[in-house]
Amino acid sequence: MLREQVLGVAVKQINRAPKKQIERLETLGSATVHEAQKRVGQLEPSLKPVFQGARIAGSAITVLLQPGDNWMLHVAMELAQPGDIIIASCTTSNTDGFFGDLLASSALAQGVKGLIIEGGVRDTRDLKEMNFPVWSKAISIRGTVKNTLGSVNVPIICAGQQINPGDIVIADDGICVVPYENAKIVADAGEKRETYESEKREEFDKGVLGLDLYKMREPLKKAGFKYFETNEDLKNSI
Amino acid sequence: MLREQVLGVAVKQINRAPKKQIERLETLGSATVHEAQKRVGQLEPSLKPVFQGARIAGSAITVLLQPGDNWMLHVAMELAQPGDIIIASCTTSNTDGFFGDLLASSALAQGVKGLIIEGGVRDTRDLKEMNFPVWSKAISIRGTVKNTLGSVNVPIICAGQQINPGDIVIADDGICVVPYENAKIVADAGEKRETYESEKREEFDKGVLGLDLYKMREPLKKAGFKYFETNEDLKNSI
Amino acid sequence: MLREQVLGVAVKQINRAPKKQIERLETLGSATVHEAQKRVGQLEPSLKPVFQGARIAGSAITVLLQPGDNWMLHVAMELAQPGDIIIASCTTSNTDGFFGDLLASSALAQGVKGLIIEGGVRDTRDLKEMNFPVWSKAISIRGTVKNTLGSVNVPIICAGQQINPGDIVIADDGICVVPYENAKIVADAGEKRETYESEKREEFDKGVLGLDLYKMREPLKKAGFKYFETNEDLKNSI
Amino acid sequence: MLREQVLGVAVKQINRAPKKQIERLETLGSATVHEAQKRVGQLEPSLKPVFQGARIAGSAITVLLQPGDNWMLHVAMELAQPGDIIIASCTTSNTDGFFGDLLASSALAQGVKGLIIEGGVRDTRDLKEMNFPVWSKAISIRGTVKNTLGSVNVPIICAGQQINPGDIVIADDGICVVPYENAKIVADAGEKRETYESEKREEFDKGVLGLDLYKMREPLKKAGFKYFETNEDLKNSI
Amino acid sequence: MLREQVLGVAVKQINRAPKKQIERLETLGSATVHEAQKRVGQLEPSLKPVFQGARIAGSAITVLLQPGDNWMLHVAMELAQPGDIIIASCTTSNTDGFFGDLLASSALAQGVKGLIIEGGVRDTRDLKEMNFPVWSKAISIRGTVKNTLGSVNVPIICAGQQINPGDIVIADDGICVVPYENAKIVADAGEKRETYESEKREEFDKGVLGLDLYKMREPLKKAGFKYFETNEDLKNSI
Amino acid sequence: MLREQVLGVAVKQINRAPKKQIERLETLGSATVHEAQKRVGQLEPSLKPVFQGARIAGSAITVLLQPGDNWMLHVAMELAQPGDIIIASCTTSNTDGFFGDLLASSALAQGVKGLIIEGGVRDTRDLKEMNFPVWSKAISIRGTVKNTLGSVNVPIICAGQQINPGDIVIADDGICVVPYENAKIVADAGEKRETYESEKREEFDKGVLGLDLYKMREPLKKAGFKYFETNEDLKNSI
Repeated sequence: MLREQVLGVAVKQINRAPKKQIERLETLGSATVHEAQKRVGQLEPSLKPVFQGARIAGSAITVLLQPGDNWMLHVAMELAQPGDIIIASCTTSNTDGFFGDLLASSALAQGVKGLIIEGGVRDTRDLKEMNFPVWSKAISIRGTVKNTLGSVNVPIICAGQQINPGDIVIADDGICVVPYENAKIVADAGEKRETYESEKREEFDKGVLGLDLYKMREPLKKAGFKYFETNEDLKNSI
Repeated sequence: MLREQVLGVAVKQINRAPKKQIERLETLGSATVHEAQKRVGQLEPSLKPVFQGARIAGSAITVLLQPGDNWMLHVAMELAQPGDIIIASCTTSNTDGFFGDLLASSALAQGVKGLIIEGGVRDTRDLKEMNFPVWSKAISIRGTVKNTLGSVNVPIICAGQQINPGDIVIADDGICVVPYENAKIVADAGEKRETYESEKREEFDKGVLGLDLYKMREPLKKAGFKYFETNEDLKNSI
Repeated sequence: MLREQVLGVAVKQINRAPKKQIERLETLGSATVHEAQKRVGQLEPSLKPVFQGARIAGSAITVLLQPGDNWMLHVAMELAQPGDIIIASCTTSNTDGFFGDLLASSALAQGVKGLIIEGGVRDTRDLKEMNFPVWSKAISIRGTVKNTLGSVNVPIICAGQQINPGDIVIADDGICVVPYENAKIVADAGEKRETYESEKREEFDKGVLGLDLYKMREPLKKAGFKYFETNEDLKNSI
Repeated sequence: MLREQVLGVAVKQINRAPKKQIERLETLGSATVHEAQKRVGQLEPSLKPVFQGARIAGSAITVLLQPGDNWMLHVAMELAQPGDIIIASCTTSNTDGFFGDLLASSALAQGVKGLIIEGGVRDTRDLKEMNFPVWSKAISIRGTVKNTLGSVNVPIICAGQQINPGDIVIADDGICVVPYENAKIVADAGEKRETYESEKREEFDKGVLGLDLYKMREPLKKAGFKYFETNEDLKNSI
Repeated sequence: MLREQVLGVAVKQINRAPKKQIERLETLGSATVHEAQKRVGQLEPSLKPVFQGARIAGSAITVLLQPGDNWMLHVAMELAQPGDIIIASCTTSNTDGFFGDLLASSALAQGVKGLIIEGGVRDTRDLKEMNFPVWSKAISIRGTVKNTLGSVNVPIICAGQQINPGDIVIADDGICVVPYENAKIVADAGEKRETYESEKREEFDKGVLGLDLYKMREPLKKAGFKYFETNEDLKNSI
Repeated sequence: MLREQVLGVAVKQINRAPKKQIERLETLGSATVHEAQKRVGQLEPSLKPVFQGARIAGSAITVLLQPGDNWMLHVAMELAQPGDIIIASCTTSNTDGFFGDLLASSALAQGVKGLIIEGGVRDTRDLKEMNFPVWSKAISIRGTVKNTLGSVNVPIICAGQQINPGDIVIADDGICVVPYENAKIVADAGEKRETYESEKREEFDKGVLGLDLYKMREPLKKAGFKYFETNEDLKNSI
């Protein structure tokens, strides 16, 4: 239970991380950020990109939807600032098409960078043509109504993670969330990791093996790992 | 139970909607048609396109398959007319690859526009190269035999919808079915909706918010929706 | 239970099929090979390509992983020869991202043709850019550690099939495994089938129906299959 | 598309099969009835009994629900006659708890024999205590509202089968539907089968093998089936 | 991201609701509590009881597990007071058997009322015999190790809900969480609802229809709902 | 690929472990055996008991089925000896009801102890009444035919494990397989473990904590685990 997750409310002002830090996190991508954050913050992989290749990061405008009802997405549109990402979940499991080409037009006009939704979307051909990136649980042509109150900019649970308004979401082939107040610290750690990985990549490209690069031969032996020349040798040893 | 869903029969002549109406429905796409039809006729989203980007509409040649057996697809090929779509389901859940490059060659030669199958298909690289659009439940290299009798052009249940021979199926990122006798009435409603949506889209592109465009501010207030400046304000109000 | 599936061992020398036979199988593709092998050897379709369009065949370097641990992939890299394919499964169901851009760099440097893994992978954008084909059960940004011993080049069960080290795996939109000692016999059968299918394809392209090409009209009649002119005729006959 | 599946209507009078035939079908059970009906009419096994051991058959009062809304179940209750079974599906996939102890009280008071629902139910402890048998897709404590119109006694698609009002549904560890007009013919076939099976069962109990009882030894040999004394013999023969 | 969800920590003292309020919530059961709480707080129905018929409520001792590792359950055991419920989730999806008969012995000795775990458990026969109620995502004989640090009594996300240490969890055929500070207010609302429902139940038992009890006939008519005598009448009206 | 997994064959004589060892393994149960065998041999938990509470162990009569065809189960019945267990998988994923009350009668008459099947079964009420334990992937009333050749007593892959004829399968709330030649060694290890666990259980029953019993306090501290009195203390430390 999120204490502030009441229905029928919207919060206008949210905390946002500095633009520069968000850009750094976007450059790093979700996997490196997740690693830099000590492996917390991953949304369940059941949310998948509607089209391949996009990578975005932005401040979260959180939306709590009612099943089959996208009213709150319109409320969110007004509260979003350019560069924000709308992230929505639903009070009960639902795969209807909450979002399509019309709302994407509106989002683009407001400068919204993308949508992450634990629900369904439609008009995926248009979304791709408009280059508006979306991550969703399902694709469904079934439209929705505008009848029942949810909330905007309250904490939500989306794909197994709590998202607070203003938290930074980084999405590409996965999705990771970073608390807004940690943006710089995580970006620092991520870039350090990136540098480290670049060095490793160069070595790998030259043909150096991970066994040598990470000095694993000794630990393997210590752990009792054994090499056999052939399968026969292995059989004889059992 | 579909009374006419007997095994071992094929019906040669089926009712088809006028070509012009089918073209109008194809232009509209499955999501708009579904909306125009008052949200009925959607096939379950578990049927997915084998490759992205295609949109087709056509009269349904219905096929009832036996598990692991694609005999009836050959019978269907003869009864199909140019512009038809073959839509198949199976007497029991089965994901074998009922359809591959050979049958696609045959389908293209007969002028068949595409295949929708609650089952598996194979050779998806070839299907894409041949630009023969297919929607299926699975992709499987496991081929099938030609031993047991199903039926062609009897009513079937496919992905949760009854399909009668000659019904119009519209497929893109979703699939919708329209009774052949309703083609014009649904196309009319769909185009009206399309016009309405185009006007909305123009407004959205200009930056007008859905809240204003759909005059939602008053209804939101009436429903008890409340805005707070900050999260603190919200907490204090609970 | 695989008797030789002990933990903490690696076998250096494995049996490989002749390069030429592997190339023939690669040209044929998984569906034809599966058919040529009398429909055995298909891995479950839950393993899917990370990007579309690749087709590879190679000798299997088998890897038994522990959950959340990719140590053994580094061991495998040293034992792989150019042209080999790494195929990995896990001692318990796990979808973490065992493999990403760094290991892909290493694999490319060693001449490894691709990866098949009953587990998760990350950095799919990079994998596509590097053109390193991967088939996996999941995509996950969650990285792994290097702590616990699995094995390399012991028999494994992957996606429902036993894979012995050196067995040939053929992967495109599906995956099929061929015992290394059967390479030639299966390639022969596959090419024969391919020739047969090419002839059929030509006939299909000309518009000949499967009913005629496969002489199905007589068997259909014998099996009791009946044609009706119209749905009314069918109803009257029930 | 079911032509008569309009929203916002109820039909008062439906065709029912004679009580005696329904009783015969109930005695036979769903598996034997399915067999007697030549293996058509099985609802998908995703619908499961809330508690084990019940077996019922009755005339179908069909209900088309809206997601998260059980209004129509109240309408159905008035139209049901003692011995009827309520069978419900939803316009979109939904697992909310449409039915609980209160509605079960009402159903029992009206003489309804049970509920089959492609949706969720709640209060399963009470349902078991009240001995009111229910088959559902899910168990969920999430209650529903009474706001939106569905329909009662129109044809529906439920778990992959079309159900017409008055069709006979037989439910135990599976569910089968029989057209009301076929009740006697199917009951006859089922009892014949039952007799046949009883004779077989007696033989089986005595230790007679199926191979002998069904005279399978000859057909096996004809099909090329071969016995080997030991695994070594088999290996040598390959 | 839960800010306080760090790894490697345990909090000794937690807030608990008064025993009396917890007892009232237990009597009400999860479905009524969920309703009384305005339909928030339901855990996903993917967590299921290991054996039927149990109903418990208690203060949450929260546990964050690492995959394949049950170390933290031992830490939790010391911090639990009689009447508490242990509720655990894992840093990554995992179905291993974290809990079996030994830990159940320990839990019973400490007065723990039950376990809720988004993971697997084993020894279910013993759990039933010991009458120790467990709700889990899976049943698996695969045991776990005690190697890696998680946390105890930090906020966790379990089956889609945030659980704070000390929150009240009510579990029977579903699971609902109530913030500890709301215990009385929710129990009050629940008992009011219970009284209301009892009155309704009496009426239902007498045979009064929901249509009359809830005065639905007028609203139905207003919403445009129409009755037809027969299916023919309905058809003629379309 | 299992080299000996040819179609259309049966092997008459198989290796069996001594009766006494099988009895010891049965007494231990699947979880303890799995642990004693160093955590290998677990079948995927997707196979579930048709009714609760049974525990059996026996020598495996392996059956390779064709989809929708139970012919080979009759062949298996003749080759089974009293105390054996029939374990079956299918050449392709299939949930039809391969086994029902008739075959159970035959199995009981032959002294077969139970059935494990990666497929569907029917007549579960009868199976329970007859006390014939079955583990299956699905329950389905859909019967099968006797047309196509599979094999009996060849190695099979069932639920992710290779099963050789004569291997010992232990099934209760999970399933574990033990190579027949290892029966004694595994039973010895299991009983040792059982003794060890009994001692622990006594301690747990007295209220001793796992932290003390397993001497975990020191390792926890070494790993950096920290206790805080209150949530406030934890927050201040972050």
